[in-house]
Amino acid sequence: MYRAPASDYDFLLRYVIDGAGILKATTDDEVTLDDVTDVLGHAGTLAADLLAPLNAPGDRVGSKLENDGVTTPPGFTEAYKTFAEGGWTSLGVPASIGGGGMPRIVANAAGEFWSAANTAFSLCPGLSQGAIAACHAHARDELRQTYVPPLVSGRWTGTMNLTEPQAGTDLAAIRTSAQALDDGAWSITGQKIFITWGDHDLAENIVHLVLARTPDAPTGLGGLSLFLVPKYLPDPDGRPGERNRVQTVSLEHKLGIHASPTCVLDYENATGFLVGQQNQGLAAMFVMMNQARLGIAVQGIGLADRAYQQAHAYAAERVQGRVTGRPAGTPIAEHPDVRRLLLSMSSAISAMRGLSTQVSAWIDRANTGHAEAHDADLVEFFVPIIKGWASEACVQITSDAVQVHGGMGFIEETGAAQYYRDARILPIYEGTTAIQANDLLGRKLLRDNGATAETALALIEASVATARAAEHPVAHRLADRLAAAVEAVRHSTRTILARADSPRDAFAGGVSYLQQWGLLAGGWMHARMLVAALGAAEDSASPRRIREADGFATAHLSQVHSLGESITAGEIA
Amino acid sequence: MYRAPASDYDFLLRYVIDGAGILKATTDDEVTLDDVTDVLGHAGTLAADLLAPLNAPGDRVGSKLENDGVTTPPGFTEAYKTFAEGGWTSLGVPASIGGGGMPRIVANAAGEFWSAANTAFSLCPGLSQGAIAACHAHARDELRQTYVPPLVSGRWTGTMNLTEPQAGTDLAAIRTSAQALDDGAWSITGQKIFITWGDHDLAENIVHLVLARTPDAPTGLGGLSLFLVPKYLPDPDGRPGERNRVQTVSLEHKLGIHASPTCVLDYENATGFLVGQQNQGLAAMFVMMNQARLGIAVQGIGLADRAYQQAHAYAAERVQGRVTGRPAGTPIAEHPDVRRLLLSMSSAISAMRGLSTQVSAWIDRANTGHAEAHDADLVEFFVPIIKGWASEACVQITSDAVQVHGGMGFIEETGAAQYYRDARILPIYEGTTAIQANDLLGRKLLRDNGATAETALALIEASVATARAAEHPVAHRLADRLAAAVEAVRHSTRTILARADSPRDAFAGGVSYLQQWGLLAGGWMHARMLVAALGAAEDSASPRRIREADGFATAHLSQVHSLGESITAGEIA
Repeated sequence: MYRAPASDYDFLLRYVIDGAGILKATTDDEVTLDDVTDVLGHAGTLAADLLAPLNAPGDRVGSKLENDGVTTPPGFTEAYKTFAEGGWTSLGVPASIGGGGMPRIVANAAGEFWSAANTAFSLCPGLSQGAIAACHAHARDELRQTYVPPLVSGRWTGTMNLTEPQAGTDLAAIRTSAQALDDGAWSITGQKIFITWGDHDLAENIVHLVLARTPDAPTGLGGLSLFLVPKYLPDPDGRPGERNRVQTVSLEHKLGIHASPTCVLDYENATGFLVGQQNQGLAAMFVMMNQARLGIAVQGIGLADRAYQQAHAYAAERVQGRVTGRPAGTPIAEHPDVRRLLLSMSSAISAMRGLSTQVSAWIDRANTGHAEAHDADLVEFFVPIIKGWASEACVQITSDAVQVHGGMGFIEETGAAQYYRDARILPIYEGTTAIQANDLLGRKLLRDNGATAETALALIEASVATARAAEHPVAHRLADRLAAAVEAVRHSTRTILARADSPRDAFAGGVSYLQQWGLLAGGWMHARMLVAALGAAEDSASPRRIREADGFATAHLSQVHSLGESITAGEIA
Repeated sequence: MYRAPASDYDFLLRYVIDGAGILKATTDDEVTLDDVTDVLGHAGTLAADLLAPLNAPGDRVGSKLENDGVTTPPGFTEAYKTFAEGGWTSLGVPASIGGGGMPRIVANAAGEFWSAANTAFSLCPGLSQGAIAACHAHARDELRQTYVPPLVSGRWTGTMNLTEPQAGTDLAAIRTSAQALDDGAWSITGQKIFITWGDHDLAENIVHLVLARTPDAPTGLGGLSLFLVPKYLPDPDGRPGERNRVQTVSLEHKLGIHASPTCVLDYENATGFLVGQQNQGLAAMFVMMNQARLGIAVQGIGLADRAYQQAHAYAAERVQGRVTGRPAGTPIAEHPDVRRLLLSMSSAISAMRGLSTQVSAWIDRANTGHAEAHDADLVEFFVPIIKGWASEACVQITSDAVQVHGGMGFIEETGAAQYYRDARILPIYEGTTAIQANDLLGRKLLRDNGATAETALALIEASVATARAAEHPVAHRLADRLAAAVEAVRHSTRTILARADSPRDAFAGGVSYLQQWGLLAGGWMHARMLVAALGAAEDSASPRRIREADGFATAHLSQVHSLGESITAGEIA
């Protein structure tokens, strides 16, 4: 049983983040908050009724490579058809190119529901978003007209082809080659690995976006070009025609997300089309990167919530022994330690959900004429933070969910183990946590000498003042702890900035610094949610929000101080 | 490739813990430290050469229930035969009953090697230890003479039968019944679940120790009796004879330890024999409990070390991109964050290994006439701490090992994923972490009003003074941090003791308090290991020990302070 947290998004968009203002700016008042409530209500129902029941059987059966390609588990093709026909593959794609036209704050919420319901399934439409964005932004007109509409409608799906055996984190080592053909097309040859949904039977065509090198291209990252390589070459009417020379060699046997086929793809003189300029492939690919990284954070939130919901339901039913200070027959959910664990989980989930919505709001604002100067900088700064923080937290929360089940958690049929297995990929793909930390330090913090960090700290300090002014002891306690955490992070920021001359010391503290920011931003969101809950008379969930704010500060925010020691220490010689 | 850390145990027993004194007291000088070096060298070789290669295939094939019982994966029966013939099943069993006669400090070390090499396999001889101990301590002579020798020689193996579907943590809910028969034996009927190695083909007989209720027994824990129920009833010559009425109904489909069969056992008028007094079953079972719980901690250390060794080897080989401040071609082990992760892992493993050896030493001393007054109390106090701390840390370390592998970590063939899956049972079986914390608070801390806690803090303070006197900056830094951690734990202790009237507040902080103690004791062991390493001219590993001491204090010991907030907060209303 999965229940989508649509009402939490309602709360965030109505009382915490200026949802109405963003809808006005992004849709010109054509979409109202009531419309969003309606859309998310439908999305939640679809996630719960259509996708969630396929999650456990999808794990058991897995996707399989057979003679004519990859076969997905029973029910997946039908579910994808319903999903695409409902327009859900392109909820956040601009209406001007046939999408649902919803801003990121809405698509982000729906994305959480899909991931929670069925992480493996959700990756497929998720990757199409990236392909649409890259084609729309960089492909020449003719390509765009052929490829974007079927990707938007979901009739075709997209993939990202970066990794090769020798080129994972280090894309400079990519060897796949592209030779120009007479007709303006290119011949692509090479092997790509870890290609998620690289082949399947859900859609009539698959559009691979492939990083490769043209002859005489410079070595390194500046010699990569982006190519579009369809599984079937479109005929003159744009329908899938001749089979292209890309083959699925094998599927990986993975720890989790078994229903999502992870392919080794062989390109042997496959026909491809250049997207964007030659040697500018990385820039075109990076159009997808922020979106994809925030997407992983949202997967983490969804999967964590799914695991939490199951643990909570189990604990509320299971009776085992006498619970301290409670009558006989009280379920284990009332044991002090089970209660602590459940609160640790739910308070982290609410914090991450708040932050992902805030980052989405900055993205939406940055894309309009109403942006404040720092919106885009805050997006760049917080995307690696939320990707790293939420993906690592998801691993912990799914582990906690196993623990709440006791011995039953270790039995596969219970389902908790699947979430734990599925979660483990999140801190790895789209850049490991260390890569996110390198991005945060190297490309964000050091580049503007801490200016964006200080902007964010000032925003948080404003919320400290608001929380302090609220009439509630939890708000006051949270304000004090948040103020202390701001100082700890400010100190870390200065420490790292002062290490321009000893980069190994700076980077040794990178992941701890990223974690500090995640926790601090989570505390910030709780402060804002708490103040909103205390002010919103009709918020029936306010007792929960007060508990979560207090629980988050106690169990999570307090960690910023011990993390500070790793940052101060630098590299241990 | 697994390499047993025999030299680390050599170091601990020669320079940190008074191994020579314990050998003198427990074996009357018959075993020397050189003998121990020899034994552990052989154990390490056997673990690496015989058991480790069966670990991955054991996971893939798993144990299977077939018509005539459980079949173990290829190679397991032959390996068990070699293992038993070498006397390794009873290394720590008293020589007076045919065992190897080694004290716990030695058996503990070998136990780590077996667990690291093949966790699933190691559970089988591990359970026999418990059966030997219970029979030896409580069974009447005739039973003892029949059952103990084949258990000691490893021809037969033992199991523990506690759990039923409605009776997991709460053993008071056990329903399995025992009816007296005319000949002094009993007829046992009921269903037991989660029975590790409950059936298999490694040995010629299996001896189940079963908790059940006699007619008119009191309800609750005081109405449980312990019965010995063999799979095959011994014939007059003591050889396995008639098949007893105990059947394996099914095996659990688990997240990990696939080679270890987890059985549902049906007893239907099976013949059993009372062990100890009627209604005293729990006391007899608890003979095994401390030993079993320390055993789980040791499993955690072994499995963590196996995962660490693999991650370290991978990182030392894998070249990927340019490493900050290092020449091209430097492997990822030199990336600041990979180095941080590896140090976090190895420093925790060394700390846990030190503490498990210290606890073993207290056990050994408590069993001799040379015990100090507090040895037995310290055992009781630290067993739940190390079980909870090391099992949770093992989950984190095996997760870190996946992370070091990047995308390859998520692929099952790599092996890192197996350790991550296997590890997840450790914080659950033999009592979840919350149960360990309840034990620490309810049966240890509150019962002696903090006396043993204060004894332990005083021991640690003595090591603070020694570290401060050493001439090394890392020792001074560690001494300062350890002193601060002692104060934090002392504060927590007082907070919990002051809550006799609000037990829910006390128990809400239980797991955090247990974790504080684990971290503090780990820091204590590092201080002692560091001082020993600085003083032992011939310790070639001393640079590593210095780094680990510094790394543990930075990354782990610092967490005692944030954990303190959860203890102070009590239950969040």
